[in-house]
Amino acid sequence: MTFSVTILGSGAAAPTSQRYPTAQALQVDEHFFLVDCAEGTQMQLRRYKIRFQQIRAVFISHLHGDHVFGLPGLLSSLSLLERVEPLDLFGPPYMEDWLRGQLKYFTPLGFPLHFHTLTAKEPEFIYEDSRVTVTCFPLKHRVPTWGYLFREKEKLLNIRKDMIGFYHIPLRDIPAIKAGADYDTGEGKPVPNAQLTHPAIKPRSYAYCSDTVYVDDLSRIVKDVDLLYHEATYGNDGKARSKETFHSTADDAARVALAANAGKLVIGHFSARYKDITPLVNEARRVFPNTEAAEDGMVFEIEQRHRAEQ
Amino acid sequence: MTFSVTILGSGAAAPTSQRYPTAQALQVDEHFFLVDCAEGTQMQLRRYKIRFQQIRAVFISHLHGDHVFGLPGLLSSLSLLERVEPLDLFGPPYMEDWLRGQLKYFTPLGFPLHFHTLTAKEPEFIYEDSRVTVTCFPLKHRVPTWGYLFREKEKLLNIRKDMIGFYHIPLRDIPAIKAGADYDTGEGKPVPNAQLTHPAIKPRSYAYCSDTVYVDDLSRIVKDVDLLYHEATYGNDGKARSKETFHSTADDAARVALAANAGKLVIGHFSARYKDITPLVNEARRVFPNTEAAEDGMVFEIEQRHRAEQ
Repeated sequence: MTFSVTILGSGAAAPTSQRYPTAQALQVDEHFFLVDCAEGTQMQLRRYKIRFQQIRAVFISHLHGDHVFGLPGLLSSLSLLERVEPLDLFGPPYMEDWLRGQLKYFTPLGFPLHFHTLTAKEPEFIYEDSRVTVTCFPLKHRVPTWGYLFREKEKLLNIRKDMIGFYHIPLRDIPAIKAGADYDTGEGKPVPNAQLTHPAIKPRSYAYCSDTVYVDDLSRIVKDVDLLYHEATYGNDGKARSKETFHSTADDAARVALAANAGKLVIGHFSARYKDITPLVNEARRVFPNTEAAEDGMVFEIEQRHRAEQ
Repeated sequence: MTFSVTILGSGAAAPTSQRYPTAQALQVDEHFFLVDCAEGTQMQLRRYKIRFQQIRAVFISHLHGDHVFGLPGLLSSLSLLERVEPLDLFGPPYMEDWLRGQLKYFTPLGFPLHFHTLTAKEPEFIYEDSRVTVTCFPLKHRVPTWGYLFREKEKLLNIRKDMIGFYHIPLRDIPAIKAGADYDTGEGKPVPNAQLTHPAIKPRSYAYCSDTVYVDDLSRIVKDVDLLYHEATYGNDGKARSKETFHSTADDAARVALAANAGKLVIGHFSARYKDITPLVNEARRVFPNTEAAEDGMVFEIEQRHRAEQ
């Protein structure tokens, strides 16, 4: 059961030969959720061997070119590859107008687009399927921008086969035990659930925060997240510039991670001015040691853990 | 004095990990002319170290995504890199509507776009600067499509310094000699121009033909071109499909090159169905031996030659 984030682009708006602009693919089991879709996303998906057919939904943070210019090409390719099932697209106001307005000049897509336009001023539950839920939350940038919090759903417990035999548990009682119930043998004290099942699996979570200036209460929203991506366009040398452009420094990102008690912090969206991002990583690690810098093609896997291991 | 074509993308619409969709950069001295601009063009320009500031004009063949989806990103980046001089864009009807219609959702560009909408049903002269002229000519595809013929201008002759001294040629007579005139010493028979100048340089030419089904009189239009790019989406095994989709086979491309007496043929825009394009190259070479297959990053340089070497 995979829960991992592949970095498709780790750069900011100005193109470099090392970093594509922003896009990520969150894998949950065999499904992929695309988070932002900059120019070149479809090439990066090919490069990192992510199958287009497995894309379940697309989540766009804001309407800046370096986060969306890959959408027309990706959608055209999905159509060319004969996708027929609808695609859900979550994103800011005007994203639908922009996209539909231009797609009309080209061969019509062979599948429907289901747009979900965000307006939330507070965290809002926007998506669920059998495996995950997604909540959007507002960020602070020059245009309306949202971050996304992906959470695995609680999984049913795995019942121990040997215990079924030992207690002669009938089939009809198994669903309740998988949901956490104790088992009443009818011969006295019920058998505690923990004795009948394997330890519970902790649902995993991922939060995506780009682009944004430092937001004080963000840590509350992404509290205890396993993996936090937070943009870090600048280092401390670019602090003034970060405020002007409504971006964050590596230090800002690390302060959010620390206050949120995140498992790990990944920083990215580095300005092209930084040929070497080591100083940014060091600045973040001073505040939040478990920080890594995103590079195109990196995969951040969140291991499955039992609650006991917490 | 460089005259060369860099292949930025050699694939057709469906993306592959090996080939970006269609774009090329023609270098004439220190200027670049972009020919088509598929998604990822700006990344390929970075990869192949072509400076954005040197792009002089853009020529688009037709309004299919795999030839234009890189335009919004490229224009945004040019603006971010503080381009101020206008950019000329040549292309099909509706290209301006499509592009302006979507750019209005983003940060306004810092430089003006000068659109030149093609309507020509015959070859038409559309551009010139101090070095080249450009002619567009209609191709036959599913939507209105044009090819482009780039020709270096005739260069003035280089006058031999030793002859200026020997005949005491006054400054005022030099422009005429550079333009090809003989020199009248006033003492009998004029000195023939060939004795006073270095041999004339042959203007070089490049023709771009994509996308198109086989067009019989294309060879007349690109007659004697030094370098011919002609799409070859299919091999002979895809002949029927090529007609249906208004594309060419490698054999079609080679027949155009042969009839045109081209110096060299480059084929590209290969369908993703061909993992190995050797059969296509072989099919073309059977008709026109001096054929090469485009690969992303290849540079086709046309050497400067004197007329005597023709």
